[in-house]
Amino acid sequence: MEKFVYFFGQGRADGNGQMKDLLGGKGAGLAEMTLAGLPVPPGFTISTSACRLFYENKGKLPASIQKEVEQAVSRLQEMTAKDFGSEQHPLLVSVRSGAKFSMPGMMDTVLNLGLNEKTTAAIARLTSNERFAFDAYRRFIQMFGKIVLGIDPGLFDEAFEKTKKRAGAHLDTDLEDSDLREVCRHFKEIVKKATGEAFPNDPRQQLERSIQAVFQSWNGKRALDYRRLNKIPDDLGTAVNVVAMVFGNMGSNSGTGVAFTRNPSTGENALYGEYLANAQGEDVVAGIRTPKQIADLREEMPEVYKQFAGVAQRLERHYRDVQDLEFTIERGQLWMLQTRNAKRTGAAAVKIAVDMVAEGIIDKPTAVMRVEPAQLDQLLHPMVDPKDTAEVLAKGLPASPGAAGGKVVFDPDTAEKEAAQGEKVILVRIETSPEDFHGMVAAQAILTARGGMTSHAAVVARGMGKCCVAGCSELEIDYRSKSMTAGKTKIKQGDWITLDGTTGRVLRGQARLIDPELGGDFLKLMSWADEIRDMKVRTNADTPRDAAVARKFGAEGIGLCRTEHMFFEGDRIDAVRQMIVGAADYKKLQAELNRLSAELPKAAAAQRRKDIKRELEGLKKEIRRPQQLYFGALKRLLPMQRKDFIGIFRAMDGLPVTIRTLDPPLHEFLPHTESDIRHLARRLKYPAGELFAKFSALKEANPMLGHRGCRLGIVYPELTEMQARAIFEAAAHVQKEKRKVLPEIMIPLVADVNELRLQKSVIRKVAAEVSSKHKVPLEYMVGTMIELPRAALTAAEIAPVAEFFSFGTNDLTQMTFGLSRDDAGKFLPFYVEHGILKDDPFQTLDQTGVGQLITWAVEKGRAARPGLKIGICGEHGGDPRSIEFCYRNHFNYVSCSPYRVPIARLAAAQAMILDKSEAGRTT
Amino acid sequence: MEKFVYFFGQGRADGNGQMKDLLGGKGAGLAEMTLAGLPVPPGFTISTSACRLFYENKGKLPASIQKEVEQAVSRLQEMTAKDFGSEQHPLLVSVRSGAKFSMPGMMDTVLNLGLNEKTTAAIARLTSNERFAFDAYRRFIQMFGKIVLGIDPGLFDEAFEKTKKRAGAHLDTDLEDSDLREVCRHFKEIVKKATGEAFPNDPRQQLERSIQAVFQSWNGKRALDYRRLNKIPDDLGTAVNVVAMVFGNMGSNSGTGVAFTRNPSTGENALYGEYLANAQGEDVVAGIRTPKQIADLREEMPEVYKQFAGVAQRLERHYRDVQDLEFTIERGQLWMLQTRNAKRTGAAAVKIAVDMVAEGIIDKPTAVMRVEPAQLDQLLHPMVDPKDTAEVLAKGLPASPGAAGGKVVFDPDTAEKEAAQGEKVILVRIETSPEDFHGMVAAQAILTARGGMTSHAAVVARGMGKCCVAGCSELEIDYRSKSMTAGKTKIKQGDWITLDGTTGRVLRGQARLIDPELGGDFLKLMSWADEIRDMKVRTNADTPRDAAVARKFGAEGIGLCRTEHMFFEGDRIDAVRQMIVGAADYKKLQAELNRLSAELPKAAAAQRRKDIKRELEGLKKEIRRPQQLYFGALKRLLPMQRKDFIGIFRAMDGLPVTIRTLDPPLHEFLPHTESDIRHLARRLKYPAGELFAKFSALKEANPMLGHRGCRLGIVYPELTEMQARAIFEAAAHVQKEKRKVLPEIMIPLVADVNELRLQKSVIRKVAAEVSSKHKVPLEYMVGTMIELPRAALTAAEIAPVAEFFSFGTNDLTQMTFGLSRDDAGKFLPFYVEHGILKDDPFQTLDQTGVGQLITWAVEKGRAARPGLKIGICGEHGGDPRSIEFCYRNHFNYVSCSPYRVPIARLAAAQAMILDKSEAGRTT
Repeated sequence: MEKFVYFFGQGRADGNGQMKDLLGGKGAGLAEMTLAGLPVPPGFTISTSACRLFYENKGKLPASIQKEVEQAVSRLQEMTAKDFGSEQHPLLVSVRSGAKFSMPGMMDTVLNLGLNEKTTAAIARLTSNERFAFDAYRRFIQMFGKIVLGIDPGLFDEAFEKTKKRAGAHLDTDLEDSDLREVCRHFKEIVKKATGEAFPNDPRQQLERSIQAVFQSWNGKRALDYRRLNKIPDDLGTAVNVVAMVFGNMGSNSGTGVAFTRNPSTGENALYGEYLANAQGEDVVAGIRTPKQIADLREEMPEVYKQFAGVAQRLERHYRDVQDLEFTIERGQLWMLQTRNAKRTGAAAVKIAVDMVAEGIIDKPTAVMRVEPAQLDQLLHPMVDPKDTAEVLAKGLPASPGAAGGKVVFDPDTAEKEAAQGEKVILVRIETSPEDFHGMVAAQAILTARGGMTSHAAVVARGMGKCCVAGCSELEIDYRSKSMTAGKTKIKQGDWITLDGTTGRVLRGQARLIDPELGGDFLKLMSWADEIRDMKVRTNADTPRDAAVARKFGAEGIGLCRTEHMFFEGDRIDAVRQMIVGAADYKKLQAELNRLSAELPKAAAAQRRKDIKRELEGLKKEIRRPQQLYFGALKRLLPMQRKDFIGIFRAMDGLPVTIRTLDPPLHEFLPHTESDIRHLARRLKYPAGELFAKFSALKEANPMLGHRGCRLGIVYPELTEMQARAIFEAAAHVQKEKRKVLPEIMIPLVADVNELRLQKSVIRKVAAEVSSKHKVPLEYMVGTMIELPRAALTAAEIAPVAEFFSFGTNDLTQMTFGLSRDDAGKFLPFYVEHGILKDDPFQTLDQTGVGQLITWAVEKGRAARPGLKIGICGEHGGDPRSIEFCYRNHFNYVSCSPYRVPIARLAAAQAMILDKSEAGRTT
Repeated sequence: MEKFVYFFGQGRADGNGQMKDLLGGKGAGLAEMTLAGLPVPPGFTISTSACRLFYENKGKLPASIQKEVEQAVSRLQEMTAKDFGSEQHPLLVSVRSGAKFSMPGMMDTVLNLGLNEKTTAAIARLTSNERFAFDAYRRFIQMFGKIVLGIDPGLFDEAFEKTKKRAGAHLDTDLEDSDLREVCRHFKEIVKKATGEAFPNDPRQQLERSIQAVFQSWNGKRALDYRRLNKIPDDLGTAVNVVAMVFGNMGSNSGTGVAFTRNPSTGENALYGEYLANAQGEDVVAGIRTPKQIADLREEMPEVYKQFAGVAQRLERHYRDVQDLEFTIERGQLWMLQTRNAKRTGAAAVKIAVDMVAEGIIDKPTAVMRVEPAQLDQLLHPMVDPKDTAEVLAKGLPASPGAAGGKVVFDPDTAEKEAAQGEKVILVRIETSPEDFHGMVAAQAILTARGGMTSHAAVVARGMGKCCVAGCSELEIDYRSKSMTAGKTKIKQGDWITLDGTTGRVLRGQARLIDPELGGDFLKLMSWADEIRDMKVRTNADTPRDAAVARKFGAEGIGLCRTEHMFFEGDRIDAVRQMIVGAADYKKLQAELNRLSAELPKAAAAQRRKDIKRELEGLKKEIRRPQQLYFGALKRLLPMQRKDFIGIFRAMDGLPVTIRTLDPPLHEFLPHTESDIRHLARRLKYPAGELFAKFSALKEANPMLGHRGCRLGIVYPELTEMQARAIFEAAAHVQKEKRKVLPEIMIPLVADVNELRLQKSVIRKVAAEVSSKHKVPLEYMVGTMIELPRAALTAAEIAPVAEFFSFGTNDLTQMTFGLSRDDAGKFLPFYVEHGILKDDPFQTLDQTGVGQLITWAVEKGRAARPGLKIGICGEHGGDPRSIEFCYRNHFNYVSCSPYRVPIARLAAAQAMILDKSEAGRTT
């Protein structure tokens, strides 16, 4: 029979640290610490399987598990020599959730369970501290009331405030024991009124219902939101930890704290954390009182500090990773309540990984695995320019690094609303609570007036890689008037501020942000990643400037150079428009001319021959003007494009450069306003009326599915010819500078191999011409984007003609889903929110659908052309999970925006390590 | 070693009638007739393989084949006792193309080959007819000049006309032998001037070059166009037939003709054809002289007629099909020059097939195979209403049945141009030639003043299933003034006429056209097809009227009922617009309400609680109006939809009805003009400004990829609910009338199984409600369209939830190609014209790309749900080649427009017969 309850205490435990799936992170940590002989209060963990059974059993714990829980309670009673409900030695326990992946603050906790009138009295007697006992009792009633009984917590707050007012108390601690007794009475009345039943006195019943409530909180809205954001599966379930209570609020030789074995913000190798003397654990995390630094403990309780420091080091070595610890000191006795691998900032992750290799704790591949690729984003993001002179409004704790500016908003709903409208907002709160989560997601950065480096705001912000300044006590925040005051400056909702999460500064207005320097640790880690990976990382860059930036970030080539971006620069757009005006007419008249010329020798009747000849004369006259416009424009564009390519080839000297021929529909280049069209008409000496008609005829019902991509080059081969000439002339030019140029010309939107064949022949012809004219050999490839389902499906036919494939996963996703990214706003967020789609397929590659097409195309393509070079140039090329997919599909490279190049390098290395370790596991 | 030249003559032949692939239709027929002992002039066929080698060998005949030709020439000389270039008994031959599939008039022919000064003199002497000899010689020079030497034929015509003028001759036949001698001299001068070389005298050289020219004509523009239209592969090649000349122009006991063993226009079982006395073969086909009926031959040459009738019957029995014969009578001796299966109209095909079964010539499956499904279109197409009183302008020959109206145009180029602009045109020509082909393709119908039932115009029009009136000699056509006169009525270019190809009438203006009655032969053939096929044929019908028509045509259910078409009828659109105005606001406010209500019990601070409550009050007020609009509109729509479904269910009593839930994006239902929007605003008492803003927000960049299909029902489930309720209430209602109702509810645009799951649950809920309320059991299915690549790719996941699949191949094609049908006009015709794509993928299913997705989805779907019902409802469901694909993929049914149902029934039967015969071949 499966075991559901795992006991731990006094050096022995049913479970161990490996059993995170079953016991959750917290339960596994408690078992492991117990086994390691560390001071852990005894208790037991109800497994995640029990949680799943709980849901299968319609929200009831099966009787067999209930029985196991009872046996564990008996054992706990024996071990602690305390009993549930005993008036001599009452047993109190905490009931905490604990899933496989840490979800801080997202699920519910009940402390002080076991209290009722009688046991409270017993505690008061045993501790000689009536105030403590009743404070514990009122906290328990409130927590149980809120979490288990679902009572509006505001009702308790109101009653508590009323008592405080009546007693003339300013702080909670100003209340006398008699006041607290009264609070307990009021609280129980509230429960009776709200539920129609008396507050349960029986500790066993309290326990049973609390366990159920914790299991239920797994599917609470907050937990669901968090899992969605962090891509944690919904079917894992949570474990429940029932642990004998220890109290940090039993006087000045008691306390409670959280600490990290290294600084989770900077990575500095020093014990880091905070504690509150004479307090219960939740006080620290909630950020209600501002706590002391852990270093202060050394002076206040040197023995305890020494013991704690030793435990911390042992745990770090044991887990070979930075630990996030919770502890309580009960009358001078240290109790460890939790150890788990610490969440950390990107910068800290890099430093810790590199340091630990130097310290011999981990090896390089492990170090590479230790940094989440997405975290690098933080390091690569802008910071406040040191030269900026923006007014410093206030200074708080540097809770999460980076910098960001935005409009001030004071509540999460407004934050969400404004952000949805494209506004950048900074969420400003006195303190944050899990209820604020959606507003934190929406905000650029978070600013709080209260709470420390481990407050809710700080922890959540770091997890999201978002800039945060916490505990900025100088601020006076007034929710009612939606404003805050810093010194004499009043900031209203909607005013701009800039936060500097690295220094803790709050700046007035929009400060200038600059790119960060990349430190030595970062470079070291990246070099290890580069040693490991064999999949290349290229970049999407359209200008020499972008190319240079990307090369600095380690790009090994350009995977996508969009030539049309060059079309918009300066007055080039003028030439492009001229081309468009001429092109269609020229083509139409040319076709007519060809047809008639071919018909002439076949015509039998003399009259017909005369007619044809006359018509031919007319056509030849008519075609002159559009011909001049079309070819004249191409002639103007050629040197401009050539110049661009020269710049890019120089910047990428020795590295391959993938250049995509013109892709967007021509109407994207057209002027939109009437006056612009009139202006163009004047410049081209073209009747404005005709221009309006011509441009409106170019509009498409579905431009995404229209005349674009290689369809342009097929109908207007002169365009492809011009682009190819610009590329090859630039290549010849740069080669003469003794640089190595490797152009890979990429044909977009191919649906059929014949399209590629035609475009390739145009390009090869131009290459041969340029090569012979400039007397240089030209090395180049011609390949295709695979961005239409049909291209993927017919890869076996395309590959013999294509020298490389590059998956354009943006369009491939659009076509496979039949979903325009521009129009998906009306339903795609709804889909992701309601779990209809697990991910936004434009952020993370849809492996189920789109991925099948890719796998198919890679297989068929390589079968038809062994060694076919394969890459990706959609935005998925910068997404770690998608990169792993590319690796598993044997891509030669991924390509992404310059700032994501390091992320892709790391992700590529991790994919390889993962693959090897999995391969190792199966052999 | 492969044999390339196949000899035939005097009862023996190297080839036979089965060898069409290698010898072409004509060559195989000549061999077969020779073997059957029929009078065929001896000769030889150079195979289609030789043609392919010719192209591989850069347009030269390989030496080995050249040698085989020489040997065959020697054998021919022996057999005829004539020699090439002999002054005693000169050998003359014809050189004709002959591909596997007949391509009438599309390739080149050279007659009288072997003539030069000396042999012409010999012929003159041998026939005692100098005029005949020089007429043959000048024809030969002109044909050879045009076809082999590529000389503008106009030059010959001009010289000929000049001689006629000088001689005062009105007709060709008025010329004396001396005139013709002069013409020959002139012609040879033209050749010398144009080519710089003398006209070749050596018959062997003449032959070699003619063979090359015929091979070359395989890739001439006319031939390419014809093959494209008729979907004949380009790589088949043509054979060349070299046959000893026989002459029909050797006096009144000579003649030449073409005949069919039955009437190819009506199918009547009687010898049918035309002949010209004292004429060469080309004169009949070209329609230059109006020929006599074949029946007249009985009186003029009874013996020859009797012999010919016997030969015709023997050949029809031999081939078990109607034969298209060419013959020449040389001085009373009958020579057969060609036999092939005859092209025929749809009506004739049906009658002949049914008659031949009755006569015991073929069996039923063969009869079913004998009618091309597309030909049925002719039978089902409109005809001129007998009650119509339109003025009859003229009467010609009923050359190809059917009826059509359009604007008169007098040349093929204008026809093409106007048709490209969406105009309906009637091409009017004095006579047509292969040069007119593109205009005939573009025209609705063809009218000629000269030429008979077997003239170029008639043959080509019948092949295309196009209405044609030929030989309408009353008309005076003036190309110069672009007008024609019929009696006293002048018709100018651009005036409307209507042609009745069944009676030969030319009507003034737009006559009323009506649907045809379907005759007994048709019904008999269709019943045989129905006996054979096991794939069902359904129809796409949105109204009870359409449903009734389709049922009459044999539809076995509705495969696609588009509910949105009902939305446009009458004033329903008003209710739809009201719904749209309310829906989005209602949804947004409802989501906000839900979120806030859920937040209330969690809010800790009293102020926050107050704020929330105040906000909730505001929201509840605000939501009232959109709620009224939205639900009010749904309530109005419900009875309207229900009424439609009642009508459809009644019409389809006992047959399944597939109903698709709302598919198009909502903005398709919106008013477009400002005044319409203002009107709507007044009616809804809604601020017009807000309405403008709301409607413009609904516009989409790519509506095809936007918020449509089930994405509507997911965001607005009340809409699906309303539609389901209308369906089930209608079903309950009609069931109570003792009719059987089988609704199959189809969810459009599913990309992910979760979408289907959600929509299905809405539908099942409504079904249960209606069933219990009306106390009737409801039989129904819920399935999905497979019209997105992702749906096909994830068929294994979708099938467990879908009770049927219906392939929406229109959208599937659009998405797979990334091609909007609305926008493809700028390049898709170019693609098909230039052979980049073989077919328009919206007409014939792209089996290479889209087909792979379908095959995959069928396999995975049936594996996940054995016996899954599978159909197609895109327009390909009415295309015979696509239907065959569906059959091979084990579809349960195809669905098409009502008028294509008979075509689909026949095509389905043919697919099954083909499949069986192929299966038979492999076992």
